[in-house]
Amino acid sequence: MNGAEALVKTLEAGGIEACFANPGTSEMHLVGALDKSKTIRSVLVLFEGVATGAADGYARMTGKPAATLTHLGPGFANSLANLHNARRARSPLLNIVGDHATYHIKYDTPLTSDISAYAAAAQSWWHRSESAAGLPAAAAEAIAAARAYPGRIATLIVPADHAWGAANGTAEPPAPVGPAPVPQLRLDEAAEIIRAGSAALLLGGKALSQRGLAAAGRIRDGAAARLIAETFAPRLDRGAGRVAVERLPYFADWIAATLAEVKHLILVGAAAPASFFAYEGQSSWASPPGCTVTTLAEPGEDLQAALEALAQRLGVETTTPARQAPSLPDLPSGELTAEGVAAVVARTMPPDAIVSDEAITAGIALYPATQGAAPHTWLNSTGGAIGDGMPLAVGAAVACADRKVINLQADGSALYTVQALWTQARENLNVATVIFANHSYEILKLELMKTGQAMSAGETARSLLSLGRPNVDWVHVARGFGVEAGRATTVEEFGKVFARALEHRGPYLVEAAIKPLM
Amino acid sequence: MNGAEALVKTLEAGGIEACFANPGTSEMHLVGALDKSKTIRSVLVLFEGVATGAADGYARMTGKPAATLTHLGPGFANSLANLHNARRARSPLLNIVGDHATYHIKYDTPLTSDISAYAAAAQSWWHRSESAAGLPAAAAEAIAAARAYPGRIATLIVPADHAWGAANGTAEPPAPVGPAPVPQLRLDEAAEIIRAGSAALLLGGKALSQRGLAAAGRIRDGAAARLIAETFAPRLDRGAGRVAVERLPYFADWIAATLAEVKHLILVGAAAPASFFAYEGQSSWASPPGCTVTTLAEPGEDLQAALEALAQRLGVETTTPARQAPSLPDLPSGELTAEGVAAVVARTMPPDAIVSDEAITAGIALYPATQGAAPHTWLNSTGGAIGDGMPLAVGAAVACADRKVINLQADGSALYTVQALWTQARENLNVATVIFANHSYEILKLELMKTGQAMSAGETARSLLSLGRPNVDWVHVARGFGVEAGRATTVEEFGKVFARALEHRGPYLVEAAIKPLM
Repeated sequence: MNGAEALVKTLEAGGIEACFANPGTSEMHLVGALDKSKTIRSVLVLFEGVATGAADGYARMTGKPAATLTHLGPGFANSLANLHNARRARSPLLNIVGDHATYHIKYDTPLTSDISAYAAAAQSWWHRSESAAGLPAAAAEAIAAARAYPGRIATLIVPADHAWGAANGTAEPPAPVGPAPVPQLRLDEAAEIIRAGSAALLLGGKALSQRGLAAAGRIRDGAAARLIAETFAPRLDRGAGRVAVERLPYFADWIAATLAEVKHLILVGAAAPASFFAYEGQSSWASPPGCTVTTLAEPGEDLQAALEALAQRLGVETTTPARQAPSLPDLPSGELTAEGVAAVVARTMPPDAIVSDEAITAGIALYPATQGAAPHTWLNSTGGAIGDGMPLAVGAAVACADRKVINLQADGSALYTVQALWTQARENLNVATVIFANHSYEILKLELMKTGQAMSAGETARSLLSLGRPNVDWVHVARGFGVEAGRATTVEEFGKVFARALEHRGPYLVEAAIKPLM
Repeated sequence: MNGAEALVKTLEAGGIEACFANPGTSEMHLVGALDKSKTIRSVLVLFEGVATGAADGYARMTGKPAATLTHLGPGFANSLANLHNARRARSPLLNIVGDHATYHIKYDTPLTSDISAYAAAAQSWWHRSESAAGLPAAAAEAIAAARAYPGRIATLIVPADHAWGAANGTAEPPAPVGPAPVPQLRLDEAAEIIRAGSAALLLGGKALSQRGLAAAGRIRDGAAARLIAETFAPRLDRGAGRVAVERLPYFADWIAATLAEVKHLILVGAAAPASFFAYEGQSSWASPPGCTVTTLAEPGEDLQAALEALAQRLGVETTTPARQAPSLPDLPSGELTAEGVAAVVARTMPPDAIVSDEAITAGIALYPATQGAAPHTWLNSTGGAIGDGMPLAVGAAVACADRKVINLQADGSALYTVQALWTQARENLNVATVIFANHSYEILKLELMKTGQAMSAGETARSLLSLGRPNVDWVHVARGFGVEAGRATTVEEFGKVFARALEHRGPYLVEAAIKPLM
């Protein structure tokens, strides 16, 4: 058995079942070893950012790591932006990065670079294999690192001579490190704050799981605390029949307005509200003055158990939390708008759909419109690194073949990782993509306005914020990558084409032709 | 004047005339400042790897740095792969990376990351701005760093509050550090080696400039030394009327065969021959046993002056070097092959064309076929980071509006930075792209064969090395991005469509439908 085979067998023993791969020459023995695996599904991607985004989506849907396989420093570098999102999502994820043979490095041939420096920049746990025989143990350690609660990015660098060198057997990953318990003192404190009134729980990460929300719902309904979800939750199961939560808005002034009546904010796996970006003359701290901020639980602690313990302390553990009633928005007609798209999506999405939301400005109406829609799972881009929506959809579709994935996607953001469409076609993934085609970086026009420069903006500034001249033709792009597609310019057309996308077993893209706001 | 304006004015003073940009919220003041510039051409790219690849192409054609503008850590991370190529090309290049306002970092909001760690991983000179008032001086220092001979990657990190804060005036970049002279001792040694016979000069970087080649040609013809170019020269001016050089082949056994008769190899700005990748049981050192390897000049030294001084020492400074005679390959007919494409390209390329070559396996015939074609400039992907060909073409076309750019492009590699097509359309760049559409990672099939695993390869291995199922439809992809396109399946058709691409003033893509070798 060579090192690559021992590595892959260790991945199998560690429960890895998917590998999103873009291999090169130095990974040929790893490809050979994956070829022999009966339990790991190897999925080719055309660009490495699709691999890490897909592994992130897979992890959010299964709770366990997928592997990625990339080629040397530059290949791995291409995966870093979506690794940033995965780190912010606290997703477990295991990168296997091939390197030159150890004895080859000294020649400093063109593709040589310091891979560990890239892994360190990604704030990833990382290890460089030290021998072929040691590869299984190194892989086991990497799997354990990825699984550290609630999830971590782990990167294993594999020199080619370790992949082709002799190794023996596999290694068993050590038991993953579970969550730390929340200290009693913090539970007492939180209970006291809630009893005093005007409190809100700001929920993040696993606090937004169905188990976490059930406990939080008891606290809300039994003890009169508001529930608010972090703005970009990695995953939220919501819709009719689920415990609904408000969502913390994006802009700092909207956050302050949302929290105006809150005297005490209790953090449960979420960060204290802050402006996403800094603005001249504005504070980044976004909680209103006079609102205290207390931490009940950090993300590495057992958020679900903490909420259950808190419910018990408040004596509401038998309260039945209110569930979201079914409710659908009215259907507008005529010219297609972002709101029209939102209404159609909300009214027609099938039960148990998975939504990958990277709709940015065009998506503002989506979240409220779908509040009472059929139950579904909502995935956000967690780290603000653009180009996550399509890859997340790939990973979610690989993880959940029996569920429809709906990717609600801004056009500008789609263009960073548009190669994901090809993998959707190759794997016949059940993804309906809606492109909000306003041919504009709308969010940046808004931001330019906020800096007071919008009125004086000349041709250069306008050209840097516009995607027009020429408009991307999404139907052509999709067909180029082997994905069926249609365009809609009215609500009625969109209803028809989106219905076709939902019925289609496999990928389908809808270009929703909407106008820019500005 | 705010810091952003002072920065941009310093760029202007430093002779920066192009900025390849993909800005975000934290760069809005930089956008505002670029908007006011009358001398810097701001070019929007849809993906950051296009920015650095384009800046590299621009630098190779002009000898001076362009700027890139990217958004925070993940945006900059997307640019790293082509930064690797630019570093290997020793291109001068200046990255401006926006960061959060300094006081915002502590909130660790979603897009926060350690940008300097990415810059360090890229082995870039880097500096993080320390104040708005200090921005002009920091920019001047960055320009000087980029211009350090023969060229360097420089990265300036600009917190948003320094961009919007008050600054005064501009700064003058210090005079760039020129090349170090080559010690007399090495010149003596090289002259002695050449006089002994059976010597070859291995030329890299600026040794391959027309000035360098003129001197090298005198040494070849007057003193009987062979001239060999490094495999992936950043830039080579060649074709009819130019001093021709052999090219060091790619694979180690081919290198050894090429050098079989060479007793003494003299390095002039090139690295000693080594295998691009390591292979099991094979040495990475690729010079034949018994062939001595001596360095005349390092890349940071004055390669052109060294060659001229060497010619003088050898008494051949008045020798007239032989020039390449015009010669064109015969035109085959019928089914299109890579050789057929090469023949048509060689026979029809206009004088002074710029070739961006990322054709990989499909391009083997291109280089010999064009040896005696109309004079042209050849740009290679220097660092092996895939996805360089299209962005290089963008940068070359921005730099040289009066020259036709021909991008000879493998399909697999094109898919990493395919967004470059849109910028070609937006800027109406004069680029004719030929996609060698064999729908296969042919080089990897070759590499798998070399590892002895090809015969036993199962479905997974085959699927990871194939781009088929579905085939990318390049005509659709190009039109999707606003670029006119045509497909050819015979040599005759290719002749017609390629002629159309050459005549077209603006971008045009030709899908050359060829069969995979394997």
